[in-house]
Amino acid sequence: MSTLIERTASAYTYPLLIKNLFNAPVVDNPEQEIVYRELRRHDYRAFRRRVCQLAGALQRLGIKAGDTVAVMDYDSHRYLECFFAVPMLGAVLHTVNVRLSPEQILYTIDHAEDDLLLIHADFLPILEAIKGRIDTVKNYILLQDEDSAPASTVAFAGEYEALLEESPTTFDFPEFDENTRATTFYTTGTTGMPKGVYFSHRQLVLHTLGVLAALGTPTSQGRFHQGDVYMPITPMFHVHAWGFPYLATALGIKQVYPGRYAPDTLLELIKDEGVTLSHCVPTILHMLLSHPKIDTIDLSGWKVLIGGAALPQAMCRAALDRGIDIFAGYGMSETCPVLTVAHIGEEDLSADDEVEIRCKTGRPIPLVDLRVVDEELRDVPADGESVGEIVVRAPWLTQGYLKDHRNSETLWRGGYLHTGDVAGMDRKRYVKITDRIKDVIKVGGEWLSSLEVEDILGQHPAVAEVAVIGIVDDKWGERPLALVVPKGDAVPDEKSLVGLVREFIDKGMMSKQALLLKVRLVEEIDKTSVGKINKRVLREKYGQ
Amino acid sequence: MSTLIERTASAYTYPLLIKNLFNAPVVDNPEQEIVYRELRRHDYRAFRRRVCQLAGALQRLGIKAGDTVAVMDYDSHRYLECFFAVPMLGAVLHTVNVRLSPEQILYTIDHAEDDLLLIHADFLPILEAIKGRIDTVKNYILLQDEDSAPASTVAFAGEYEALLEESPTTFDFPEFDENTRATTFYTTGTTGMPKGVYFSHRQLVLHTLGVLAALGTPTSQGRFHQGDVYMPITPMFHVHAWGFPYLATALGIKQVYPGRYAPDTLLELIKDEGVTLSHCVPTILHMLLSHPKIDTIDLSGWKVLIGGAALPQAMCRAALDRGIDIFAGYGMSETCPVLTVAHIGEEDLSADDEVEIRCKTGRPIPLVDLRVVDEELRDVPADGESVGEIVVRAPWLTQGYLKDHRNSETLWRGGYLHTGDVAGMDRKRYVKITDRIKDVIKVGGEWLSSLEVEDILGQHPAVAEVAVIGIVDDKWGERPLALVVPKGDAVPDEKSLVGLVREFIDKGMMSKQALLLKVRLVEEIDKTSVGKINKRVLREKYGQ
Repeated sequence: MSTLIERTASAYTYPLLIKNLFNAPVVDNPEQEIVYRELRRHDYRAFRRRVCQLAGALQRLGIKAGDTVAVMDYDSHRYLECFFAVPMLGAVLHTVNVRLSPEQILYTIDHAEDDLLLIHADFLPILEAIKGRIDTVKNYILLQDEDSAPASTVAFAGEYEALLEESPTTFDFPEFDENTRATTFYTTGTTGMPKGVYFSHRQLVLHTLGVLAALGTPTSQGRFHQGDVYMPITPMFHVHAWGFPYLATALGIKQVYPGRYAPDTLLELIKDEGVTLSHCVPTILHMLLSHPKIDTIDLSGWKVLIGGAALPQAMCRAALDRGIDIFAGYGMSETCPVLTVAHIGEEDLSADDEVEIRCKTGRPIPLVDLRVVDEELRDVPADGESVGEIVVRAPWLTQGYLKDHRNSETLWRGGYLHTGDVAGMDRKRYVKITDRIKDVIKVGGEWLSSLEVEDILGQHPAVAEVAVIGIVDDKWGERPLALVVPKGDAVPDEKSLVGLVREFIDKGMMSKQALLLKVRLVEEIDKTSVGKINKRVLREKYGQ
Repeated sequence: MSTLIERTASAYTYPLLIKNLFNAPVVDNPEQEIVYRELRRHDYRAFRRRVCQLAGALQRLGIKAGDTVAVMDYDSHRYLECFFAVPMLGAVLHTVNVRLSPEQILYTIDHAEDDLLLIHADFLPILEAIKGRIDTVKNYILLQDEDSAPASTVAFAGEYEALLEESPTTFDFPEFDENTRATTFYTTGTTGMPKGVYFSHRQLVLHTLGVLAALGTPTSQGRFHQGDVYMPITPMFHVHAWGFPYLATALGIKQVYPGRYAPDTLLELIKDEGVTLSHCVPTILHMLLSHPKIDTIDLSGWKVLIGGAALPQAMCRAALDRGIDIFAGYGMSETCPVLTVAHIGEEDLSADDEVEIRCKTGRPIPLVDLRVVDEELRDVPADGESVGEIVVRAPWLTQGYLKDHRNSETLWRGGYLHTGDVAGMDRKRYVKITDRIKDVIKVGGEWLSSLEVEDILGQHPAVAEVAVIGIVDDKWGERPLALVVPKGDAVPDEKSLVGLVREFIDKGMMSKQALLLKVRLVEEIDKTSVGKINKRVLREKYGQ
């Protein structure tokens, strides 16, 4: 039997609480700035005061430990204040995904049992659409950037700034169990209603320390430090803006919140505020890199962590050409999110190799136990060829889906969180994701990546769009079917498409199973609400 | 009531265990080196294998979870292996202070209830002296640097390398509660027997992450990163070499262990192995800086964290002149140890101001709640003048003294760990220690630092040595008494000494209470076994 440490009666059992991340840096850097677009800037002294005032206002409106407070806002100084004040009260912060449909938003508000909703004026039309049907919310707080109140039928408990002004500037935040739930938000898939994930104080503190240990300690490339200026370009409702507002606050650095994402504003803020570190999905970076203003702005010295989707090599090169230190990371809503980061390290690399590493999924950060496994949870070899599903353990993974026992157990079967991502690992343990597991095609027991086949077929001159799915096959179990939208009048035939695939097989860049490819011409390919190919629908239509 | 997060049955509750710090970097950097003097070097692959082999050997000798394994060795690759293998078994690592007297060592071995002792050949004379009286140790393992076994009457269970060779190269380390005790060691004061402190897996993991977050993220000065080469110059028995072997391993960097501290060897290793980061007490650095070889070695690029005693400004300047990035930190055996680090930050500082900041005690690192308080635990103002005792909370403080209820409660009275150090805090929250609380003189309710009065009197040309203590005074409670050893034939009189003190009072550099100074000439000043002034004895002799 191992021996637990003895605690003398008076000893303080230090719980890992968000307030402990907040206190020191905010006191130590009183003059550091928080900026909200061109509309507002204040120092950490005011930040600290406002967090206390927000807590006081929420308490006055009846919010207590265990209650849930929802926010619908753009990335703002107010959202940052909610990141701290709400969990520090012992309440749960529900960061509402404002891009969902009104019906889905209604579902998440009901499911999370929100007690209070802070809502930006721009999102009032959504609220008007669902208002009569919200069961749990007792109070609404209006967030606005204009001086005049918007027209609305909602009976607000008050406007944010007015409520803060009425509150004392100090607040005695309570102590509680570090496993107290701090945040909740919803993740959407191609099937069913959104699923709720949740994170405790302990998990958010450990995520902050783990990511700081990973991003703080590289020798040079991709390093996050006390001299940086931070601006998120991932919504704060999306996995706590990847947790970076907590990191930035713990570092005591200048933080810039851009409000609604408009390419001009983002570029202006980067230039005017001297932003040095951001994170975003490839689509947003593409939007910035192709903006007419881009040539007037010096982006060298800007570090950008890319996640949410694979970083294309062409985009990586374009960013590097502008002096941007760009690199990929990997994680998901269920994982708080950061699991891996693609730092290039200290090796002497060719430009091509460097791009390849920056675009891979990276290596696990401290405390992340990441494995690539087969269906029996056995490790597949780290040889750069074998593939399997990524499963993980880390101190910051959701311990289930909110009020959803069946999906929770599926997520955690065998004691590892199943990411649903198919990847390979090379000899240096860099992970590279090749597909979603539900889209993988299982041909005679081997896994064939639908994405890789799509990449090849997309290069055919007569193909406008392509999706590859697995269809039932008596001999092989499954075989690949390409659904192809022809480009203009050209009609790509099966023979020339299979021929293209064969070229890649001959070069050792594709597995032989792809030769079993069938082709079907279609007029259009079904998409999800966010514009991704909906393979579930395609399989229902064409899979038999 | 706050809501705890729900865990689905299959979810993995990730405990913070030392094995989780060990796994990833050791796998990710298989070619990284561990060096032991000129005697041995191997890669992380071998390091991993050897930790498994050591665990196997210990298990074969009957060691199980809850047992205690003691080590008496110089700083070595073997000690590093013990840092991991012993706690990862669920056993407790007792790092024996080999500088204690044989009787004290016997006391600590008995008190810690050691089950097994690994001992370097050089320390066998100590063991021979106490051998018949050790009650708990069942097995001894010999550590040696020579090929031939030393003459000894101890019946060893085996020699370290031979035992490792007989063990399998993999080991399945168990899971257990993160609050399991991982380490124990003893701290000595001027009174009583050594007191045992102890740290859990959780505490050591959080200390590693917290110190990495503090030392990894400065913009440039005093930064610890993945390109560093680490060598301790603080014994591994002393607060786990300040925890740095855990940091270095988590970073996956090259580590150099110097064996017995000999100035030549240390300087040679710094040069030959490219050491870039070390930590030590001022005495050791002084020894290196005044070594004849020093001018032949380029020390620019060497970062040195100084602790254990105040960093004198003259030493700081001398080190800076050689290009050494020197800075102070603060902590103690009871605190794992790191609490503060003196980084200069990004401000534009004069050379003098920079030296002053590097020599202060620094600012609290993340998660450390450090206060300077009066006797009622009220904060004294952070104004650079007021002083009080440093009390702390952090996730890595010993939760008591081993089997010593009374001292445990004294240490933790009021829910804060009392450091016994008197300090002031300036407006930027840099802490500066001025005295030990038990040596402070309380004059009419005000605290007078004995060290500061000693500093002044030591500048008098007729003073060879001086100690200042408080003596009982009817009017003031206490007043200062200077015990002075005259220099040669000169006899300093009270009037000229008080006059010297008055000069400093007039310049605003000393508080007026010092004018109450009495002087007594003595032939010698009592010292402790480690050469520090023994004020307890002085107070007994002269205090009434």
